[in-house]
Amino acid sequence: MQDKSFLMIPGPTPVPESVLVELARHPIGHRSKEFSDLFMSCIEDLKWLGKTKDSDVFIYTASGTGAMEAAISNVLSPGDKVLSLVIGVFGKRFGQIASAFGGNVEILTVEPGKVIDLEVLKQKLQEDKNKEIKVVTVTHSETSSGAANDLEKIAKVVKNHGALLIVDAVTSLGCMNLEIDNWGLDIVVSGSQKGFMIPPGLSFIYVSKQAWDFYKKSKCPKFYWDFVKQKKSLDEQTTPFTPNVSFVCGLKKAFDMMKKEGLENIISRHARLKSRLRNGLKDLGLRLLTEDINASAAITAIYPPEGVSISDIRSAYKKDWDITVANGQDSLKDKIFRIGHLGFVSDRDIEMTLAVTEKVLEKLKTPCRV
Amino acid sequence: MQDKSFLMIPGPTPVPESVLVELARHPIGHRSKEFSDLFMSCIEDLKWLGKTKDSDVFIYTASGTGAMEAAISNVLSPGDKVLSLVIGVFGKRFGQIASAFGGNVEILTVEPGKVIDLEVLKQKLQEDKNKEIKVVTVTHSETSSGAANDLEKIAKVVKNHGALLIVDAVTSLGCMNLEIDNWGLDIVVSGSQKGFMIPPGLSFIYVSKQAWDFYKKSKCPKFYWDFVKQKKSLDEQTTPFTPNVSFVCGLKKAFDMMKKEGLENIISRHARLKSRLRNGLKDLGLRLLTEDINASAAITAIYPPEGVSISDIRSAYKKDWDITVANGQDSLKDKIFRIGHLGFVSDRDIEMTLAVTEKVLEKLKTPCRV
Repeated sequence: MQDKSFLMIPGPTPVPESVLVELARHPIGHRSKEFSDLFMSCIEDLKWLGKTKDSDVFIYTASGTGAMEAAISNVLSPGDKVLSLVIGVFGKRFGQIASAFGGNVEILTVEPGKVIDLEVLKQKLQEDKNKEIKVVTVTHSETSSGAANDLEKIAKVVKNHGALLIVDAVTSLGCMNLEIDNWGLDIVVSGSQKGFMIPPGLSFIYVSKQAWDFYKKSKCPKFYWDFVKQKKSLDEQTTPFTPNVSFVCGLKKAFDMMKKEGLENIISRHARLKSRLRNGLKDLGLRLLTEDINASAAITAIYPPEGVSISDIRSAYKKDWDITVANGQDSLKDKIFRIGHLGFVSDRDIEMTLAVTEKVLEKLKTPCRV
Repeated sequence: MQDKSFLMIPGPTPVPESVLVELARHPIGHRSKEFSDLFMSCIEDLKWLGKTKDSDVFIYTASGTGAMEAAISNVLSPGDKVLSLVIGVFGKRFGQIASAFGGNVEILTVEPGKVIDLEVLKQKLQEDKNKEIKVVTVTHSETSSGAANDLEKIAKVVKNHGALLIVDAVTSLGCMNLEIDNWGLDIVVSGSQKGFMIPPGLSFIYVSKQAWDFYKKSKCPKFYWDFVKQKKSLDEQTTPFTPNVSFVCGLKKAFDMMKKEGLENIISRHARLKSRLRNGLKDLGLRLLTEDINASAAITAIYPPEGVSISDIRSAYKKDWDITVANGQDSLKDKIFRIGHLGFVSDRDIEMTLAVTEKVLEKLKTPCRV
């Protein structure tokens, strides 16, 4: 049935009607007062979402990876040691970008589905007596596994050492609690097609005072991502390059909705959806990749029933119910499937997903409620 | 009157209704076959537009400046000599990016409104007996002045020397004739909010075989802009990072319209609109910045009538007629105003603009038809 497709993937996520309608308006001039007002209001709303008064925040016309490159290229110098905390595909990306920019990258990793062990991290940083580690990168919610690190505690350990902490919050911001000022997060990166409820096309970066100190010493080349260009334009209520004006207008609409719901309500909704989905899936006899305590509020990774391939299960969701669920990535490809539940997702969507999952399992002749 | 605003600026340019409607659809999954098919069709259409079979073409989720940085960072090494041909603000930008990436930039410039003198360029390159100049950058149509270089002849001179030619075609592609293969253009950059008739948010880059040779030797760091990542993904009919799927769908609609009109018709329409506007403005007694022979088919820069400020003239267009025209930039700020006429612009729009301009001049108590 045309136009009935439903995405339950970790991005692009569903977009509210009022945001879609906004995208269909003629673009306004990006040097107009009307746009400046909208843009500055989004900047304020981004600060509200990240619980920060102290950090600067910039909006890039780019995918989330663009903002990740901005985070690295603005603070690193070739040869700098980077400790990259990796719990999945997207955690690896920071290390890859840092290597591309001449960083000396060390990786601390775990099995898929697990999270960073605080004691191991503590020891690793204690061993670095000469403070050679300049930067630590970490993923808050790992899209590839549905595991979420305890960011508050990790930040405490890293700040105690003194390295700069760069956080990938692409699938956590607007979904899980994240407190930039209170937790001392130096750089936080996110993307539009996740908790922000708009399509992919914008990314966001928060820059703390300590990050600006690193900027001054950084010797990596930058132009499009350059923090100073962003800051200078922001002081004039504009952007250094022609921004995606349509998406900024859509973002403003999405923020209006988010502020109406309230930040604590958004966070508790996502926690509730996650718990209901996980419990419901377990009741259907399915095994989940992550333990409850490490579960991201944005994505859940699920093992297929025994003897059923990922391809069969995805195609049952798609063909019979027009629901798209995601495959695993990298070493988890064809081993798990993933259901996204971040952004514009309600309790009704989760009940529907569970009801459909029961039918999918029945069709695949797999005993339910084993 | 709400929703009656009309942009006659060099970007964002007007967007057709059928493209706007496309942007208001729910984003589809970027790893779906449906998206791959749309995406690959846009890639083919981009080749059609640039008249190339030999070059690769990539789509970035970024402003035009992002693709300019991609052009530089994929072929340059620190210390490489770059000759930057500058006829305005956007011409300067290539030099700024190359400097940021460690290039040794020499600038060949002209007065605002003028274009590159072929004899001067020829001599400059002949003097470079040791072939130290690795890269030449040039703007086809300069947005800040409305002047257009003779790209075909410039390319001939540069290819004769052997340097790599990087072209900013942001406001020329889809508006003026540009023949990548026939003219030997190595890298060509463009942006979505111009001749492509969609809002700002995507940029495009064409990469020739010779550009790939330069890539192999390039020592500038890159990740988001990396040609190899783009090429590898394109071979799998996908993108390395989550693209702006909504805009790719909109681009496909725009290409459907462009192919229906036909490339030669698009080019002749822009030439006709340019001539009619220029002649009409001259008939109203207005003086234009560029000579007819150097005039861009995308933008016209106009001096205000004597004794009238740019601020007054822009505000008369805006307040009485709800038309936005652009100020000058840089050294031309408050000295000229600019009317954009590229993309989704018809003969009717130009007649309307001339009729309104006559009224604006009357109101400002300036004698018409002097």
